Amino acid sequence: MRIVAALGGNALLRRGEALTAENQRRNVRTATEALAPIALAHELVISHGNGPQVGLLALQAAAYKSDETFPLDVLDAETEGMIGYMIEQELLNLLPARRSCATLLTQIEVDPEDRAFRHPSKPIGPVYAEAEARHLAQQHGWQFARDNENFRRVVASPQPKRILEMSVIEMLVRQGVLVICTGGGGIPVIKSKDGSLAGIEAVIDKDLASALLARELKADAFLMLTDVAAVYKDWSKPRQRAIRRISPQAVENYTFAAGSMAPKIKAACEFVEQTGGIAGIGRLQDAKAILQGEAGTLISSETADTSWWD
Amino acid sequence: MRIVAALGGNALLRRGEALTAENQRRNVRTATEALAPIALAHELVISHGNGPQVGLLALQAAAYKSDETFPLDVLDAETEGMIGYMIEQELLNLLPARRSCATLLTQIEVDPEDRAFRHPSKPIGPVYAEAEARHLAQQHGWQFARDNENFRRVVASPQPKRILEMSVIEMLVRQGVLVICTGGGGIPVIKSKDGSLAGIEAVIDKDLASALLARELKADAFLMLTDVAAVYKDWSKPRQRAIRRISPQAVENYTFAAGSMAPKIKAACEFVEQTGGIAGIGRLQDAKAILQGEAGTLISSETADTSWWD
Repeated sequence: MRIVAALGGNALLRRGEALTAENQRRNVRTATEALAPIALAHELVISHGNGPQVGLLALQAAAYKSDETFPLDVLDAETEGMIGYMIEQELLNLLPARRSCATLLTQIEVDPEDRAFRHPSKPIGPVYAEAEARHLAQQHGWQFARDNENFRRVVASPQPKRILEMSVIEMLVRQGVLVICTGGGGIPVIKSKDGSLAGIEAVIDKDLASALLARELKADAFLMLTDVAAVYKDWSKPRQRAIRRISPQAVENYTFAAGSMAPKIKAACEFVEQTGGIAGIGRLQDAKAILQGEAGTLISSETADTSWWD
Repeated sequence: MRIVAALGGNALLRRGEALTAENQRRNVRTATEALAPIALAHELVISHGNGPQVGLLALQAAAYKSDETFPLDVLDAETEGMIGYMIEQELLNLLPARRSCATLLTQIEVDPEDRAFRHPSKPIGPVYAEAEARHLAQQHGWQFARDNENFRRVVASPQPKRILEMSVIEMLVRQGVLVICTGGGGIPVIKSKDGSLAGIEAVIDKDLASALLARELKADAFLMLTDVAAVYKDWSKPRQRAIRRISPQAVENYTFAAGSMAPKIKAACEFVEQTGGIAGIGRLQDAKAILQGEAGTLISSETADTSWWD
């Protein structure tokens, strides 16, 4: 099987944990321990989020010289380096020496007219109390949105259109290389009228970018790995129920949390409908069990009736 | 021909220039304009330095939370992302659409017993007046060394031993992909007794790392591109003369500036002696002319007598 696995920001950094190199590395190690058995048996391509990390790098740059900060596309590229490095190193420690790994910088074309540029919605960086958020908004011209009790910086998150390095990614996967790419949803670039590329200030949703990657690779399975056990109907309500298997058609009967789960389900359905493959959503530690239908939620066109966990 | 071109930190950031995204991009554009004609006619692999950039990221991290800075291997990885992204994007804008580019994260094994860990010598980041250098040394436990009138932070710079992603780099080059790799001299890692890899605080010299890359790739030519026109005998003295062609044997008759030129010449000689290829040192804008012997300094075993520019 050819599998694309997308690691959520929350799988790489536990909620409330400080974003130190040590904490990141420990979580990356947990992630790679879950993925190594899959890499041994299948063709595997790994992507990852960068919400907490890209926000931190923006804060670091602003703390040093607030008038010389780097634009988000450059910070996205920095996070592809940082996170990709940790994932690759930990994987190399778990896989046999003959297995090659490659971490590839990935640029993704977006539409400069995407409405996301007028409506920033993607949360990045840490959470703040209201007063601190107001202060940062004034100081740097950043936008903030409510995150439960707190506030978080939000940036534009346009739809991914085209992965620029697709032919190289495919070449490597065909040769049996374990590829880490599309980190942080890829680096967003736009094409100007003369055809030249330029970076743009945004952070692409890593689930949508990974779904595009999985579709282009004609993957058999697309896994979105996070810290939530499954997709729930009526999440956080007394009547909540975990979905075991569901079809893209049946998904339309339910509504899901806009911030986290809805984009995952949208990405899953797009992948399943366009390729006939299966998509899985669940906990990182359950990666292998999700593939086997023993944990998490599977979205598949071959599922007639929605089935539930217990 | 198969060519490895190493871009010096001073080729990517002019001396005295602020390290903004705009300045970096403008210099990267100049660099890619010099390299694109070579990429069109030959197999080309590009590496680059990261001295100013890795120093800046360390300062940014320390300015935000001085007790949660990232180690140098992680910052090295961030610079591979940042600089590699800019180089790849500008190259894609200059090359025909069918030409694929890949920017590959690169880890390089070093010896944990390398004496460089006891004698930090590689300058990174900006230059400081003495008082400011003293303050930073106290605040962060960093080491500083004299840089002409000023001071600059210095870090360990161990010898590069083995490029972990070598098989992938070679695979891509063979397939005609323009590869950007070994950025910042590669991310330094050590192998512990149980065989597992771990990053280590260091910045590998990018000329030595690039020479290793060029040897492993059995390149025909290895170019070190900087902001100096050629290798000079008696540099900055009234009797200075620019070397046009020289053999590795004849190089031993001269001494060169320890900081910048000596490592380049060492890297050139190692490459030439081990592969029989040619090595060139000179200005970035002259890249093509250096290859043709019309600018810069060529180091070649087939050169009998040292020849000079006018």
